Amino acid sequence: MKRTSTRLADGRELLYFDRSDDADRSADDVRELRPAAASQLRHDRLLDEWVTFSPHRQDRTFLPADDLCPLCPSGPGRSTEIPAGDYEIAVLENRFPSFTAEVHGRCEVVCFTSRHDASFTSLSAERVRDVLEVLADRTAELSALPGVEQVFCFENRGREIGVTLQHPHGQIYAYPFVTPRTRRMLDVARAHRERTGGDLFAEILSDERAVGSRVVASNDSWTAFVPQAARWPYEVHIYPHRKVPDLVALDDAERAAFAPLYLEVLAGFDGLFDAPAPYVSGWHQAPVGADRHLARLHLELFTIRRASDKLKYLAGSESAMGAFVNDVLPEQAAERLRQACTSTQVKHPSSTRG
Amino acid sequence: MKRTSTRLADGRELLYFDRSDDADRSADDVRELRPAAASQLRHDRLLDEWVTFSPHRQDRTFLPADDLCPLCPSGPGRSTEIPAGDYEIAVLENRFPSFTAEVHGRCEVVCFTSRHDASFTSLSAERVRDVLEVLADRTAELSALPGVEQVFCFENRGREIGVTLQHPHGQIYAYPFVTPRTRRMLDVARAHRERTGGDLFAEILSDERAVGSRVVASNDSWTAFVPQAARWPYEVHIYPHRKVPDLVALDDAERAAFAPLYLEVLAGFDGLFDAPAPYVSGWHQAPVGADRHLARLHLELFTIRRASDKLKYLAGSESAMGAFVNDVLPEQAAERLRQACTSTQVKHPSSTRG
Repeated sequence: MKRTSTRLADGRELLYFDRSDDADRSADDVRELRPAAASQLRHDRLLDEWVTFSPHRQDRTFLPADDLCPLCPSGPGRSTEIPAGDYEIAVLENRFPSFTAEVHGRCEVVCFTSRHDASFTSLSAERVRDVLEVLADRTAELSALPGVEQVFCFENRGREIGVTLQHPHGQIYAYPFVTPRTRRMLDVARAHRERTGGDLFAEILSDERAVGSRVVASNDSWTAFVPQAARWPYEVHIYPHRKVPDLVALDDAERAAFAPLYLEVLAGFDGLFDAPAPYVSGWHQAPVGADRHLARLHLELFTIRRASDKLKYLAGSESAMGAFVNDVLPEQAAERLRQACTSTQVKHPSSTRG
Repeated sequence: MKRTSTRLADGRELLYFDRSDDADRSADDVRELRPAAASQLRHDRLLDEWVTFSPHRQDRTFLPADDLCPLCPSGPGRSTEIPAGDYEIAVLENRFPSFTAEVHGRCEVVCFTSRHDASFTSLSAERVRDVLEVLADRTAELSALPGVEQVFCFENRGREIGVTLQHPHGQIYAYPFVTPRTRRMLDVARAHRERTGGDLFAEILSDERAVGSRVVASNDSWTAFVPQAARWPYEVHIYPHRKVPDLVALDDAERAAFAPLYLEVLAGFDGLFDAPAPYVSGWHQAPVGADRHLARLHLELFTIRRASDKLKYLAGSESAMGAFVNDVLPEQAAERLRQACTSTQVKHPSSTRG
């Protein structure tokens, strides 16, 4: 892909990724914009964790009307975050970032397509593969920034989960610390290695493949399964069969094989309740520096919808104590997801999902 | 208070707590009920945490019409969870429990008042003190059950936070394990003691009192403050000045002093946006067995409302990585809460809040 780096009016970086080498990316951002205010990090002594404060985010754009979408291409009389009249995949620094350079972090927005009414589930397998390549590009570049310790690529989808822009997009957080959940996973993996000599991630993957009842989909390079102790009503983890630390380390064949499998799983999520599933989908990558040998790239995907008209809320037990109560057994969740994948494929036989 | 233990039709325990010694609590539960199904615990190997599965909770009562409220007193032709025609404070085993005896746990519901349209904020200071006494009773009794390792008393308030019954009530979870967040706090407190010899909770309290800018309310026995690295838009921690492990250890003067202070803070929360605040309020108590000397009783209260028309959602960064981003600075949150407390008191000069 052709990669073009430009700057927006307030100095933020905008990157275009194009299949065609002759894409013209010379359009300037003609808006008047003020630079974002700085974020602030504070250390929580009671939990030994970092919390980020971004008061400027209180006024971030909130569910704008479709014709005011800041992630659509620009047009006559209409200047968006992307000055071009069309684009394939665009990445830009977030205008209302949680992390700014002052705290050695950075937040980016990844526009998967210029089509406002699309969703990730409607992308072609080819585009999904290109998105993976873009995320690998961003992971490599952000990992090299001074002070960045972990790069997190994710997509929030659906108003129910707090999405404030409807245009299909993902996000990247480059954290100036190793996040609490990753730190916990790696502490547990280290203790497991010291105790048994084994690789915890590899054992989980091989056990899930051997048991089979929680596997939702698989191919030569990837396995998607509901974890044995899932926290969310419908939750799927997708592991590459080869142990790699991050998206940068995937080879072309693995990227190509991921696309149809992921589209199949997402179709299963959308088929559960005959309504688009509000979900969080996040790539767990190894930290930039410490403990890379303990980590393994994998994707964790979950929806908060537990029934057609009910959501799973994080109330007292989960929010205050971190103790999850799940109303859906993982084996039943896997069974329902397999059925939903199949019926979606039957309904759309012309799709490229394989 | 007079304490009467009875049984509901399916064997669950129901306790009445009455100020008057001659309250008649002989009414029988005449309903036909099936016992609750058993819960299941699973160990998450990747995070070394317990997750609880309660499929029977999928069908729990969900926002019933007011005249079908199961927590109101019973009346002619209407049998609720509480057979009596009226009550003061009632505690019963949850009909749709997250934890059951099979996993060495138990879940209870605490009805603060028989008045369906009341809320905790409208209780008298005397009733709040009685509720504390009831929670202490339950903490002592549940802590003595075989296998119970931690007792958590909490209130979820508001549909926005997932409350499924409008009648003002709290809950008690007796966990068969020490919860992840408590374990983390105690690990950090232990490391702090080993490194410095100091008591982390005591230092946090004395620092907040010395700094003052984040203190929302205080009296001789308690201080309420916004923590220096708060995770939620409006979050208040309330510490007793005396180091005690749990509610059982509070003396009468401390219980009496808590009531008006807590009502003042809750009034502040409701005054923030001129609408009842959806909140989670939870008592952090020492585990039953391990590390009691490291712990300190305190209450943590937060709302998910970040603006009059906006909620704080836990999306990618928080849910997947445990990394919180907060849009409101703690000092500003404290200032706004102090103002909201004051204006509420001016508006209601006849209240008993002091």
